[in-house]
Amino acid sequence: MTREIPDIVIGRLPIYLRELTRLAEDEGKLNTSSHELGKRLGISSAQIRKDLSHFGEFGKQGTGYHINYLTDQLRDILKLTQEWDVAVVGAGFLGHALANYHGFLHRGFRISWIFDSDTTKIGEQMGELVVQSVDELETVITQNNVKVAVIAVPASYAQEITDRLVTVGVRAILSYAPIHLNVPDGVEISYSDPVIQLQRMTYYL
Amino acid sequence: MTREIPDIVIGRLPIYLRELTRLAEDEGKLNTSSHELGKRLGISSAQIRKDLSHFGEFGKQGTGYHINYLTDQLRDILKLTQEWDVAVVGAGFLGHALANYHGFLHRGFRISWIFDSDTTKIGEQMGELVVQSVDELETVITQNNVKVAVIAVPASYAQEITDRLVTVGVRAILSYAPIHLNVPDGVEISYSDPVIQLQRMTYYL
Repeated sequence: MTREIPDIVIGRLPIYLRELTRLAEDEGKLNTSSHELGKRLGISSAQIRKDLSHFGEFGKQGTGYHINYLTDQLRDILKLTQEWDVAVVGAGFLGHALANYHGFLHRGFRISWIFDSDTTKIGEQMGELVVQSVDELETVITQNNVKVAVIAVPASYAQEITDRLVTVGVRAILSYAPIHLNVPDGVEISYSDPVIQLQRMTYYL
Repeated sequence: MTREIPDIVIGRLPIYLRELTRLAEDEGKLNTSSHELGKRLGISSAQIRKDLSHFGEFGKQGTGYHINYLTDQLRDILKLTQEWDVAVVGAGFLGHALANYHGFLHRGFRISWIFDSDTTKIGEQMGELVVQSVDELETVITQNNVKVAVIAVPASYAQEITDRLVTVGVRAILSYAPIHLNVPDGVEISYSDPVIQLQRMTYYL
């Protein structure tokens, strides 16, 4: 995979996309500028223009960006013109929260399955989903060609689940388990650990 | 505030700390090396040595790091020798998950209060906590000199809650609301939005 565009640039595109959506849907705006976007996001307008310039010309000097057009372009770049089915592994409190979170809607993802190994949880309704046995993980992922998964299991199970997901073709994993996970080249992994985020901030206190 | 050491370096220290704890507590190890740490974390050993060198000499050529000593030093650098009381605002599914999460224990934080504006939730038991009215937010934070908070409210309320927290002295905020928040200088803010993380990965699929 060529990574000509820095990861950090790619990482800002979803932030731009989210703010553009907010401008359009919540505030009914049609146009914006790198200046306005930057001010709202605490990012310099020059940075925004430079980030976007990696992908083409999206605005005009003086008139700025047409929000719908730029939104479409960003969704295209980030491969969000389709909706990705997401498998969640782990139906504890966090899995429960994910199954009930409406923030995925219209942003390119749909939580389509939730798995657990706990027989007392299998069959339980969570949001619009029913918890399935983790024994069915491979079958469901293979049959539905699932590429995206979220791990919400304890740290001690996270690597095993990761390996199983990768074996059957998952290529993007968001893990809430507080542990570093090994994945082969070609598999993207991202972590969310509130303690790591808090510890980073207390340094500055 | 001087920021002589790059943020990205500070951001890796909690990762090192977490892995050191794992080595000591789960595997009973007493010593490690930048090579072993790096291999387990997918970070080069040179990077680890360079990061740590900002703060002093923690290891010896050939013998590596004494895990307990390095752990103590990192906890000291990150101001984790005390336990920070954390206020969670928002007692929805996510707040519920946070109140029941044991991952904060022994890592420098204790979720001590959870607030909501929904009268049907106030008084409800969540983990070891009882949901309190958000009307009590300022009093509790002031009386207990709380510096750290987690926001788990809808995007539309997040800025208002942020402003209220900052006004009464909160200096580090982890927000799960999918919106950029404005905070004054001297206040640290960190975001967790699963969709942003997933969108960043689908670019590479």
